[in-house]
Amino acid sequence: MQNVDDYLAEILAAIRPLAPRELGLEDADGGVLAEDITAQWPLPPFDNSAMDGYAVRAADIAAATTAAPVTLPVAGEIAAGDTSDHQVAPGSCLRIMTGAPMPAGADAVVPVELTDGGTAQVAIGQAVAAGESVRRAGGDAAPGDALLAAGIRLGPAPLGLLAAAGRASVLARPRPRVTVFSTGNELAAPGTPITRGRIWESNSFMLASAARQAGAVAYRQPSVPDDPGHALAVLQDAAGRADLLVTSGGVSMGGEHDVVKAALEKLGTVRFRKVAMQPGMPQGFGMVGTASTPILTLPGNPVSAYVSFQLFVRPALRALQGTASGHQRTARAVLTAPVRSPRDKRSFLRGVLADDGTEITPLSGQASHQLATLARANALIVVPEQVTGMQEGDAAEVICLDD
Amino acid sequence: MQNVDDYLAEILAAIRPLAPRELGLEDADGGVLAEDITAQWPLPPFDNSAMDGYAVRAADIAAATTAAPVTLPVAGEIAAGDTSDHQVAPGSCLRIMTGAPMPAGADAVVPVELTDGGTAQVAIGQAVAAGESVRRAGGDAAPGDALLAAGIRLGPAPLGLLAAAGRASVLARPRPRVTVFSTGNELAAPGTPITRGRIWESNSFMLASAARQAGAVAYRQPSVPDDPGHALAVLQDAAGRADLLVTSGGVSMGGEHDVVKAALEKLGTVRFRKVAMQPGMPQGFGMVGTASTPILTLPGNPVSAYVSFQLFVRPALRALQGTASGHQRTARAVLTAPVRSPRDKRSFLRGVLADDGTEITPLSGQASHQLATLARANALIVVPEQVTGMQEGDAAEVICLDD
Repeated sequence: MQNVDDYLAEILAAIRPLAPRELGLEDADGGVLAEDITAQWPLPPFDNSAMDGYAVRAADIAAATTAAPVTLPVAGEIAAGDTSDHQVAPGSCLRIMTGAPMPAGADAVVPVELTDGGTAQVAIGQAVAAGESVRRAGGDAAPGDALLAAGIRLGPAPLGLLAAAGRASVLARPRPRVTVFSTGNELAAPGTPITRGRIWESNSFMLASAARQAGAVAYRQPSVPDDPGHALAVLQDAAGRADLLVTSGGVSMGGEHDVVKAALEKLGTVRFRKVAMQPGMPQGFGMVGTASTPILTLPGNPVSAYVSFQLFVRPALRALQGTASGHQRTARAVLTAPVRSPRDKRSFLRGVLADDGTEITPLSGQASHQLATLARANALIVVPEQVTGMQEGDAAEVICLDD
Repeated sequence: MQNVDDYLAEILAAIRPLAPRELGLEDADGGVLAEDITAQWPLPPFDNSAMDGYAVRAADIAAATTAAPVTLPVAGEIAAGDTSDHQVAPGSCLRIMTGAPMPAGADAVVPVELTDGGTAQVAIGQAVAAGESVRRAGGDAAPGDALLAAGIRLGPAPLGLLAAAGRASVLARPRPRVTVFSTGNELAAPGTPITRGRIWESNSFMLASAARQAGAVAYRQPSVPDDPGHALAVLQDAAGRADLLVTSGGVSMGGEHDVVKAALEKLGTVRFRKVAMQPGMPQGFGMVGTASTPILTLPGNPVSAYVSFQLFVRPALRALQGTASGHQRTARAVLTAPVRSPRDKRSFLRGVLADDGTEITPLSGQASHQLATLARANALIVVPEQVTGMQEGDAAEVICLDD
């Protein structure tokens, strides 16, 4: 049996990051930056007003007080977006709006709150220092300054900064496209009638949602019956249109009923193995199709498939973007009840982490088919390989699950 | 000036949750469940095998040991998905696959690992208890059991459970549709040339990404120039196709340059106010259009707009789904440098929270236009209204920002 960490390392070593593409800013959302961004122009691009108020020469109002305001004629107004040239003559001022370019001659802005708000002339009740309420060109970034480093994930602030720097597109590794499907003759689509021996297919809905949560673009395929030829054809077709394939079921024992294993073993490019974990022992990883698309074959039990997703598929998605960011949060919390675990396997038990993060309560119903328990959990309790039991009051490592 | 908490309470009191809709499971991803789900059928629906192995009568192999295996004839095989009737006669067994229905007469499954794997007959090297490796019908949930409560967010496990329970669709409040746009004559589209006085528009990219991170479906509109009639027409049109409108800019001082304020003040359904916070003082909230679509008018400085999004838009999105879940994580961390804050305003300063969450380092460049600083931050440091400064070593409340 392979150790959990060894198996993950094998996956991460084999996956090559997606080729970067020039993406429009909206398409780049959730992608990973693949170039270093330096400022080409100063940010802000020109001196401008930080406030609505009056552009002045600070020296002209040095004597202003509330008791003895200085009154200046208002020679005009500069709105944000005004591209014409303005000048403040000595002993004069211009009304100016936030973001409007500073006029020549002025060296400060008096916020409107410190004035009587006049339009023909204005009474200013307080002196301001030169530079006051002026945003200097380049005050956020000067040309040549590093703005963003390759490898960061593109979210709100980086995308805003790219736009502010004038970029309409950027070189980035896009969100990976993931195709998920389940296999098994026992599977029926939810909403259709079933007879004894059949169950409603659920893993593809669960795994597609998990892939979306992890930042991927997810596609569900209908479930595939137990026919290795059919399964292989679906896999090879899907491989051409996805960056990662994820199947569930059909990998436990081998033989004609383990359709994914039977289909892929012939190709020889996917290795099946037992991983020392519970749930989720039977795992497979390799490449399929002419594009060598990576595939992870997860076990069919819903809880096994879910835990396998968090442990292996999520990191594989990160590797496809060439980043290590995007881990699920881990924590240490005190067990409110004892847990058991098989020797030599790492266990991932379903639990409820208290709002304050201090205590974790193991749930009842820990079998790998007990999806109702999983739906109540907000964390996985990790029990190491060499530990067969933990007591109430012991501190356990927990993996926090998404909302 | 209005207190931050009072303003938020006013928003949350005014927003009515979206009407629930019957959504297919994939469309329901990210939605909030609007009905209580109880099991209609047992889960699993029938007794089935938890392992690949042999369905037996436990009594027939009670004497089996490694040294003296019990050999039974194998009368046939039951695959998962097999809907025909099978029976295990005394002294006999059937090969059975994981998930296959238990045959009449059998009361346990011997995992293949405890046997010689025979097909015509099988040597069994260990006794098993009655019930061993059998998943009982209803063992996960019995008919009438509560599966999911109205109000939970639909993610991987709940969607999987709905599918497993046979549901193809569910009553849920969908992800809200948010339309964002910026206003201002100074704004130019990124990638286009600009002259002195104009800047590249960035807030709409930033806010649309933030809305997506918060679980909304986000649409960007091109920026609107300083023409109140134009702005009002865009708002009323967008209101018919969105669940929430978010603008940035045009709200600071009033008058013809504050286009959003000028457009909306005539309607009388949006109230503008100053909120005691930094950045982000000028705020507006109300309803527009025939459908009374809620609108939040954010200030135009990028950092102000971003902080306003986290404080007010994010909770408004939750309110549209009728849930309080989806808060950003908060923590307490020790300042590595002093911070200052204006009296009587709550400050939200940009900082970098250490990987272990213990220390927070305030960034330099805290002005509200300094987007480059925001792009380096992973947390906001909260300084309460009555506090004007905190020292290195003080513990501060921090709001963790998304990856």
